[in-house]
Amino acid sequence: MTKIFTLDEIKQVINPEEAIQAIEEGFLLYAKNLVVVAPLASLEIENNGIAKIKYGYIKGKDTYVMKVGSFFPGNTEINLPSINASMQIYSQHTGAFEALLLDEAYLTNVRTAAASVIVVKYFAPEKITKIGIIGTGIQAKFQLNYLKHITACKKVMIWGKNIASAEQFKLDMEKQGFIVEIAKDISDIISQCNLIITATSAVKPIIFADPVQSGTLIISVGADTKNKCELHEDLLKKADLILADSRIQCCELGNIAHALQTRAITEDSIVELGDAMIKNIRRKDEQQIIVANLTGVAVQDIQIANLAYQALLKKKRN
Amino acid sequence: MTKIFTLDEIKQVINPEEAIQAIEEGFLLYAKNLVVVAPLASLEIENNGIAKIKYGYIKGKDTYVMKVGSFFPGNTEINLPSINASMQIYSQHTGAFEALLLDEAYLTNVRTAAASVIVVKYFAPEKITKIGIIGTGIQAKFQLNYLKHITACKKVMIWGKNIASAEQFKLDMEKQGFIVEIAKDISDIISQCNLIITATSAVKPIIFADPVQSGTLIISVGADTKNKCELHEDLLKKADLILADSRIQCCELGNIAHALQTRAITEDSIVELGDAMIKNIRRKDEQQIIVANLTGVAVQDIQIANLAYQALLKKKRN
Repeated sequence: MTKIFTLDEIKQVINPEEAIQAIEEGFLLYAKNLVVVAPLASLEIENNGIAKIKYGYIKGKDTYVMKVGSFFPGNTEINLPSINASMQIYSQHTGAFEALLLDEAYLTNVRTAAASVIVVKYFAPEKITKIGIIGTGIQAKFQLNYLKHITACKKVMIWGKNIASAEQFKLDMEKQGFIVEIAKDISDIISQCNLIITATSAVKPIIFADPVQSGTLIISVGADTKNKCELHEDLLKKADLILADSRIQCCELGNIAHALQTRAITEDSIVELGDAMIKNIRRKDEQQIIVANLTGVAVQDIQIANLAYQALLKKKRN
Repeated sequence: MTKIFTLDEIKQVINPEEAIQAIEEGFLLYAKNLVVVAPLASLEIENNGIAKIKYGYIKGKDTYVMKVGSFFPGNTEINLPSINASMQIYSQHTGAFEALLLDEAYLTNVRTAAASVIVVKYFAPEKITKIGIIGTGIQAKFQLNYLKHITACKKVMIWGKNIASAEQFKLDMEKQGFIVEIAKDISDIISQCNLIITATSAVKPIIFADPVQSGTLIISVGADTKNKCELHEDLLKKADLILADSRIQCCELGNIAHALQTRAITEDSIVELGDAMIKNIRRKDEQQIIVANLTGVAVQDIQIANLAYQALLKKKRN
């Protein structure tokens, strides 16, 4: 019988340190070609939204994982989240539907935040002086809460189109021990922060090449579809290293795809995150500008869902 | 919160007459282009099996339906069903995951049997003298149990590779009021039955052109993949009418695809079931040989899942 787990149960078993470790392992497995992923399947629901299915498995493991999600932008008008998702765990041996994790996209938020931690772990400047966050949605908070596990820096600057959201962000995050300033302008963040995370739904660049200071690490987690773009092509051109969570995916989606289209960069200037980890490609000095685009890879979903499932089973047994 | 329904609960609310009506309506909606279906998504699990997702919706209705299934042939060796499936109901308005029907492929069996009833309704000879069933699996029983709702004929001839299964079939179906003979050979069925249903996993033809008698209706429900084939190409050539549940799908899968490849038939000789219903294409006389290939169309899954879901909700309210 399929086991059903609710969001509350899932939240209780997710340990951020373990989540980060699982995602790091995921990128390594992906680089080693041990991950089998089906092409992204999707269905547009006329005038309303889109359903998306990401699924795959890690060779030699016991399960395959299906993330069934949706994006219905109109939901925000009726106070519902625009993104929905559940994780489904099936047996690689029999196809049995072992478990349904009704995580309401929580695990997606965790795996996205955990991926930034990995990028910071390997590519941040030695001393992070101030963290800049652009965007005030749920992922902005996840990012900061997960960064705690890799940097001691508590100084944060936030910018968002919605001032009320930025103020709420400041309130919430100061309770978590951060010191948060609200930026008047994105340029404040660019000039003061050497770790910048963009978590917006921008379709036009919000960070340009010129003002970015040497030594900065910029992680774009918002630009995850064909039409989204957070970083200007010239910034990618200027960068000393361009990281992609998935080469194949980033050539199709987000900032990297845009920069390739305009020929600001070429494909051989892109380094895949897992490859960089394996081949020991790192920040060379404190001057390098490094840019990462995280579009979200199925292996992250597979890893985080398996982690949650194992923890839930363990808790059930005890 | 997603509602979860078990096989037992689902079985209790499925009324065969309503199921047949829902499937008939489904073929009409499909013919009227009111059904939106995503391309079949699938993932091979190395050396073990395959996961398949069929999903879509009917324009103007409230839900979209996802059938997540799998085929793991090795399961039979450990006494598990080789086919697994669940139905998932999502809101067309918000993407919310409304309900999970853990039907263990029961609804798939129902919708397949119901489709045969529709074919019999419109294309059977006036008097069905004896029903021939080839194959002794679970679908063979479903077929016969659903045929009760369209024909009073109780005389049945069964053939299967596995004699024990055929004997069990006879035992089970005689309890349901049928008079069942076990055929020594498929040729007994061909010579005595004027409604023949093939529900096997044959990859080579089991019914050939020559012995088939005039007036016979043959429905193939087993040949639903690229490599499966139950009816010889010459039989399709000989037939006065070739019916496909889905033109596009049958040109890719099963008997019709095989007959097209060998050029025994051409595409313009194929009539889609829903089209035939709308355009009043019927059996012309008692001599015609009519052949139908039912490969299973997503609209059937959508209709049967919605029917079950509405009935389950109604029962819950009462």
